[in-house]
Amino acid sequence: MRRRLLGPSLSTSYGEPIHVVRGVGQYLYDAEGNEYLDCVNNVCHVGHCHPKVVRVAQEQIAVLNTNTRYLHENIVQYAEKLTETLPNRLDVCFFVSSGSEANELALRMARAHSGRDGVIVVDGAYHGNTSTMVDISPYKYNGPGGKGPPSFVEAVSMPDTYRGKYRERDNAGYKYAQEISTAATALNDRSHPPGAFFCESVLSCGGQIVLPAGYLTNAYGVVREENAFYVADEVQVGFGRVGTHFWAFETQGVVPDIVTMGKPIGNGHPLGAVVTTREIAESFANGMEYFSTFGGNPVSSAVGLAVLEVLEEEKLQEHALEVGSGLKAGLDSLKGRYEAVGDVRGIGLFLGVELVRDRETLEPDRKLASQVVENMKKEGILLSTDGPLHNVIKIKPPLVFSHSDSTRLVETLDRVLSDLRH
Amino acid sequence: MRRRLLGPSLSTSYGEPIHVVRGVGQYLYDAEGNEYLDCVNNVCHVGHCHPKVVRVAQEQIAVLNTNTRYLHENIVQYAEKLTETLPNRLDVCFFVSSGSEANELALRMARAHSGRDGVIVVDGAYHGNTSTMVDISPYKYNGPGGKGPPSFVEAVSMPDTYRGKYRERDNAGYKYAQEISTAATALNDRSHPPGAFFCESVLSCGGQIVLPAGYLTNAYGVVREENAFYVADEVQVGFGRVGTHFWAFETQGVVPDIVTMGKPIGNGHPLGAVVTTREIAESFANGMEYFSTFGGNPVSSAVGLAVLEVLEEEKLQEHALEVGSGLKAGLDSLKGRYEAVGDVRGIGLFLGVELVRDRETLEPDRKLASQVVENMKKEGILLSTDGPLHNVIKIKPPLVFSHSDSTRLVETLDRVLSDLRH
Repeated sequence: MRRRLLGPSLSTSYGEPIHVVRGVGQYLYDAEGNEYLDCVNNVCHVGHCHPKVVRVAQEQIAVLNTNTRYLHENIVQYAEKLTETLPNRLDVCFFVSSGSEANELALRMARAHSGRDGVIVVDGAYHGNTSTMVDISPYKYNGPGGKGPPSFVEAVSMPDTYRGKYRERDNAGYKYAQEISTAATALNDRSHPPGAFFCESVLSCGGQIVLPAGYLTNAYGVVREENAFYVADEVQVGFGRVGTHFWAFETQGVVPDIVTMGKPIGNGHPLGAVVTTREIAESFANGMEYFSTFGGNPVSSAVGLAVLEVLEEEKLQEHALEVGSGLKAGLDSLKGRYEAVGDVRGIGLFLGVELVRDRETLEPDRKLASQVVENMKKEGILLSTDGPLHNVIKIKPPLVFSHSDSTRLVETLDRVLSDLRH
Repeated sequence: MRRRLLGPSLSTSYGEPIHVVRGVGQYLYDAEGNEYLDCVNNVCHVGHCHPKVVRVAQEQIAVLNTNTRYLHENIVQYAEKLTETLPNRLDVCFFVSSGSEANELALRMARAHSGRDGVIVVDGAYHGNTSTMVDISPYKYNGPGGKGPPSFVEAVSMPDTYRGKYRERDNAGYKYAQEISTAATALNDRSHPPGAFFCESVLSCGGQIVLPAGYLTNAYGVVREENAFYVADEVQVGFGRVGTHFWAFETQGVVPDIVTMGKPIGNGHPLGAVVTTREIAESFANGMEYFSTFGGNPVSSAVGLAVLEVLEEEKLQEHALEVGSGLKAGLDSLKGRYEAVGDVRGIGLFLGVELVRDRETLEPDRKLASQVVENMKKEGILLSTDGPLHNVIKIKPPLVFSHSDSTRLVETLDRVLSDLRH
């Protein structure tokens, strides 16, 4: 039915796709009753079907679900709680229905405020599925079916200290950030002066890459010199996942001009948000009304608020730090045993394991990565690959992921890697 | 709190905004317990908080809500039911989170399939809030804060037989459609050959304008001659609202290449869809994956399916025709009594009342329209204005709107118009 009724541009995960029927916490269940430990779902952030989020949604759905042309307490209570998680100057909220819509809106704002249409992005990045988001997503425009960047876009190198041109010891954060200046010059030369710098606070499609120390502070300096604005894309990595901080940009000690949110924000409910400064919000209100039919409705707001409350009540940020640190140490230990484990990186519960055929040449092992994912699935553990070379195993489970899940993941990965070596 | 926490580009309805707390069927209730008859919400299509839609959502939310990289029965059952409502050739579905995302995707498809980037739109149209949708929405790019059309866009006149250059008796449907050919030439001259013609099947922001007979058939003929594809935007008017047919394009006896859906599709749940032909879907699958994190998830699909079932079970399309016809006749009767009622138009439960200061010159009466809306609100009836001259009262209630609601609406409007005359 799926092949007949849905577009062929939507593929399924795994060689043999899973027919899921139920989700609880960090587990998914298929139609045959098999249980899977979900290590890749950063959308169902506080756990599949979290009882509080479910209850709040069920209650509000039955009472009222209409648009934001009326006053309603949920949207303002939610906006207040959301801005409390952010640095002071980020205090004006806009609600939409997805991360793509959030990044779309952020770009419109940065352009309206700066009066400049050029965009600087980081190589390998993905910011959404609309025309303009594909235009600013190297992951898409340089990928299969892509047509390269439009003239208003310039990409800088991924600040990758494993595979890229600078290592952490080379003052990589500073050096990579200088490329933004070159990119700005290129855009100016093409009469598309830069209005925005988009950057995921930890690179996701790029291969779970943690930005080198000082990258964002230096980048922000260059961006402001060029009269552009910095959009922190927290769609994949926000909401406590990185453990040490609630927002991943905070790990770099920088305050963006605009922050975009999606995926985990509603634990699966279609929701997105943009938070910015009063100044930018005022510039954006140039007479053109911005209205999202669904964004910020009473149900979406109730769900978003419930997610924030659960994060707090269950101390999931701290939990992500603790479990994530243990998991990273466990994965690191595999590095000693398997030549193929070239790099283990990440922060909190957003981790990546890069597989290589040779630790000197860093020749990627895409085939092994894909075999590992398939074999782990047979063991009841869901993972997937990412990165431009498709050789990074990504780990970003619901934050309720436990120490014993972590132990099981490392032990199983150990066994699977061992089996594949023979 | 709202002024402090939300962006100023989002305005509220009415001079004194309503603080809504509950919705039931065609009624909204405010915090003071006042009841309002909702005559403008075409999103809560089968009625606010429809019990079946609520129950289905409540059930699925508690069981599973994850993405479409897994197999799940809801999405395919929903896609099957949805395609059954459409002409045979429209049989491949894509699910997204909003009408804006649906139109965004439709444009990407039309461009991929045609290899041409130009877009022809109808004046006054609104197709969404993303950068590219603003680019193809004259309602936005010609409105406050707008910067005019980009070079890849050309607008044709609204085929308005009340205020425009052709009347129904002039073979308006044919004549207006010929403008598409001129627009195509202009686009070709600017090296943006037309790939898509976007048209709402009844013009909404344009002022509730019913397309003249033959418009879409003629338009489609021109569009195909130009090697472009026709996108029917049913975001505002689809799902049985027009009464005689399930889709408003069907009233013109034409079959589009792509149909986009939003607003009513999930009765308020953030959902959108694009349905197209297998051929276009195959062209779009050019190697670039299209993935929507939230689109088509088990909850959204369950809700969408429930809306289709309710429409069928409660015969709401037939109901819209019957109640809408009576309502239109009632509104027509006001034309005889009030010079200001210049035109009453629409189809099913998508109606417009255009107010003028002079029936000969058609000088619009924007002030009266806005007074009527405010005074009707005092009578507990929610309406709003639309159209480029802001003088059209729009009527598009949840489809459960009854004969007695219709009588009440007409009688109250009669009294309000009478009071305002004195």
